[in-house]
Amino acid sequence: MTRQRLYLYDTTLRDGQQTQGVQFSAAEKAEIARTLDTLGVDYIEGGWPGANPTDSDFFADAPATRATMTAFGMTKRAGRSAANDDVLAAVLDARTPAVCLVGKTHDYHVTEALGIGLDENLSCIAESVAHVVAQGREALFDAEHFFDGYAANPEYALSCLQAALEAGARWVVLCDTNGGTLPARVGEITRAVIAAGIPGERLGIHAHDDTGNAVACSLAAIEAGARQVQGTLNGLGERCGNASLTSLIPTLLLKEPFCSTLATGMDAKALASLTRISRRLDEILNRVPLRAAPYVGASAFAHKAGLHASAILKAPQTYEHVDPATIGNERVIPMSNQAGQSNLRARLAGAGIQVAAGDPALPRILSVVKQREDQGYAYDSAQASFELLARAELGALPDFFEVERYRVTVERRLNAMGRRISVSEAVVVALVGGQRVLSVSESHGENGEDAGPVHALWRALAKDLGPWQGSIDQMALADFRVRIIGAGTDAVTRVTIDSIDRSGAAWSTVGVSPNIVDASFEALIDAIRWKLIHDNAT
Amino acid sequence: MTRQRLYLYDTTLRDGQQTQGVQFSAAEKAEIARTLDTLGVDYIEGGWPGANPTDSDFFADAPATRATMTAFGMTKRAGRSAANDDVLAAVLDARTPAVCLVGKTHDYHVTEALGIGLDENLSCIAESVAHVVAQGREALFDAEHFFDGYAANPEYALSCLQAALEAGARWVVLCDTNGGTLPARVGEITRAVIAAGIPGERLGIHAHDDTGNAVACSLAAIEAGARQVQGTLNGLGERCGNASLTSLIPTLLLKEPFCSTLATGMDAKALASLTRISRRLDEILNRVPLRAAPYVGASAFAHKAGLHASAILKAPQTYEHVDPATIGNERVIPMSNQAGQSNLRARLAGAGIQVAAGDPALPRILSVVKQREDQGYAYDSAQASFELLARAELGALPDFFEVERYRVTVERRLNAMGRRISVSEAVVVALVGGQRVLSVSESHGENGEDAGPVHALWRALAKDLGPWQGSIDQMALADFRVRIIGAGTDAVTRVTIDSIDRSGAAWSTVGVSPNIVDASFEALIDAIRWKLIHDNAT
Repeated sequence: MTRQRLYLYDTTLRDGQQTQGVQFSAAEKAEIARTLDTLGVDYIEGGWPGANPTDSDFFADAPATRATMTAFGMTKRAGRSAANDDVLAAVLDARTPAVCLVGKTHDYHVTEALGIGLDENLSCIAESVAHVVAQGREALFDAEHFFDGYAANPEYALSCLQAALEAGARWVVLCDTNGGTLPARVGEITRAVIAAGIPGERLGIHAHDDTGNAVACSLAAIEAGARQVQGTLNGLGERCGNASLTSLIPTLLLKEPFCSTLATGMDAKALASLTRISRRLDEILNRVPLRAAPYVGASAFAHKAGLHASAILKAPQTYEHVDPATIGNERVIPMSNQAGQSNLRARLAGAGIQVAAGDPALPRILSVVKQREDQGYAYDSAQASFELLARAELGALPDFFEVERYRVTVERRLNAMGRRISVSEAVVVALVGGQRVLSVSESHGENGEDAGPVHALWRALAKDLGPWQGSIDQMALADFRVRIIGAGTDAVTRVTIDSIDRSGAAWSTVGVSPNIVDASFEALIDAIRWKLIHDNAT
Repeated sequence: MTRQRLYLYDTTLRDGQQTQGVQFSAAEKAEIARTLDTLGVDYIEGGWPGANPTDSDFFADAPATRATMTAFGMTKRAGRSAANDDVLAAVLDARTPAVCLVGKTHDYHVTEALGIGLDENLSCIAESVAHVVAQGREALFDAEHFFDGYAANPEYALSCLQAALEAGARWVVLCDTNGGTLPARVGEITRAVIAAGIPGERLGIHAHDDTGNAVACSLAAIEAGARQVQGTLNGLGERCGNASLTSLIPTLLLKEPFCSTLATGMDAKALASLTRISRRLDEILNRVPLRAAPYVGASAFAHKAGLHASAILKAPQTYEHVDPATIGNERVIPMSNQAGQSNLRARLAGAGIQVAAGDPALPRILSVVKQREDQGYAYDSAQASFELLARAELGALPDFFEVERYRVTVERRLNAMGRRISVSEAVVVALVGGQRVLSVSESHGENGEDAGPVHALWRALAKDLGPWQGSIDQMALADFRVRIIGAGTDAVTRVTIDSIDRSGAAWSTVGVSPNIVDASFEALIDAIRWKLIHDNAT
């Protein structure tokens, strides 16, 4: 059977830019474009040239991509020719192989927002598209508010699509601009549009997640015959976001009726990079990855209930609808106060610690985990600290060093030149192999270096740990997260620290205390201990 | 036209408990149950009595609710009578008016996981349900893996539902346990189940979000005729979560075809409390609310693009599919480097600052915002700091006080009794109305009080600000969040502080520095200034 081609259109760099709290630099946009290109999407919408300096800068030096780089803009304004519209000219000046223009298709918006006649709007669409095509570019038409427009005046909404197609648009894209249309209705209207003579092979869908249905609306339009789907990585976008390509792609490639009837430009290898690419985007944007994200989230294949965890070990398909490896994700059996002994043994085995079923240490470890979690510790996201805790109960935690005392001072004052400066100082007294070692570090926060108390403490700790110094020198702190747990007088601070080393290993540790510096200290000590254990094993 | 009754079944306290990183105490469960009850859901599934101490404790002292309190458990095991199954007995011992039992309906799971015959499983279902009914309780049957089971062996899957109904179950609930079934297929199978004689009025749907379609699957089943929908607040749940009632409820109450054909136990007033209740749950669980959450998210009605923002001011329905007030949410026009002057004026007006169009301060403010955001500030979530920045540019920021210098020390050591203690000390030198004021605070972190450097600094600052002390004494810090921005040597720390006062006002401020204490200090100073401005206005 011949599979029909389905085109993936990524608008992370344009609509995704509308996400509250997200700001791309031109360099970040270029990096994301390169990353998207390895995934195998068909189109990359890079932004709106001329609308803001970032987008103009990006297009001035856009990376070469296998995907069709597309500039976004709007149809020409009324009362001037397409050639004389400066906004449109700026879009064409980006010299991309494809240009996507948004235009009105809802009669109310034409007469009220634009304040022009319905026929005049049709001319704006047709002339703008023709102008793009005349310049040898591929033209796409984003039909704004299409579903609301179709409900209000189906003939007019359809005539807008016809005008674009007749003027040479390769694609007309049905946009549910305010995100209010539900999946069944999207499917119904898409079928009606195709029945009215718009070929599915030239029809796209652009959905928003305002009712939590962007993915389902996209699937409904594809089932109805649309052959282009627009979306963003990780569902970025204004308000509740656009349809998430990160959720859509695995469904389209792995599940019926899509996987056996449609073909995309992506192969299994690209699909297996999806989790990594999703996390990489969050990294570039300094966003915390959504644990519960379908397919790519850290929790997507995490099994917490004791019953489920034991079933998973026997037959993964019972609680996993797809193999996590197909999208580059992995199964997780986290610790929690619901964890049964089967979870615990699986988790320990994952950390290379074999414990026999029925070992009396198992209930002891569970009880310590529960007690710690009641105090505010969270081991789900700090597996290295969990491992240390288990090793302590199993009597398998070597006594590398001890810290007798420390002191951290942060001071902000005017210096001798009258300039306001901040200085952090940390003193650590450690006992290493019977020796008492004093270390001190100082930082002025110059040259952009981290000048905070936690980093000062880390630097003093890392300065001299005698025989262990070789390991310590290879470590670095990658991130630290702080969370206030509880409220009022019972509040404690939970600090989670991510560490990395030169071998590429990454591990996370946790500390809890009413004092953020103490909590950080605890997580730092765990980070060092974990490194020492792993360097000195076997 | 008579509307059919649709029942809302909340499982936040049971399936929501499976969320990675979430741990309820019994007291928190009771508080959530009371909160859910004000919303008007029909059933509250409180947990699995006997499965863990938290759930047993909760049921031992469960709050009285208007909603039907339901205990969860599983059908009896083979080889013993329902009356002699200790797991089932523990569930019934919770004495709830309703009991929901999960059981197998997929032939493979019956023979492989349970290792019993297909007929024996039917007996387990029938006898367990009959036992619940005989004790005068309402019985529900959760048909585990129903959609996969129906695909494998439709006759057997249906016979499981029939067995439960014939034994007296009020409801049979189709569970897509591993979350892999897509909406169109859920609709198709639900229609087939009803066509096979299972009345829609006794049929429920229980969907998971593993493909990002839990809401759409639930809607598809309801459109097919199911009249009970199960879900959790904020979409809590194992892996990618359950169907989010927070997303489903507004769609069911506000949108066609649901709102004019179905009735729930919720009225418009309850719906208007949804945003508050959603945020309250996150507060109880110490989770960061998802900004992009449909309907209730802080970004759900946030308009970032300059074009959108100006259209919104003219005609809200252009970019809002429902009125945010119906779910107790609000429209937000946040600041960002894409913000046009129309956004800016709207935002300033929201803070009570009227600026004429064309005021030369507007581009100046935009440029400062952009510059600060490049440094790592985020004003979307710190409107009070944005307001202060704008006031400074407008020359409307009074000079209340200045801090000449400060010093914070954190020390951990052994005390005279040999006990490990931590002490934080802060010294602040402020200039208030020409006076130089020295304040010092010290904390040992005893009695659970906050003993960290930020709190010590806050206490020293708040100790004596002369004429402003009356305002300061009414303030408290509600939360503080820390985020590392950038990486390596360019890393800076962003601190966002939430403050509250006795009048119920709440405001957020931001500080950025390579030094976490400096960043916190900046956010603290902004918090105090904002309070002083608002206390001394008019």
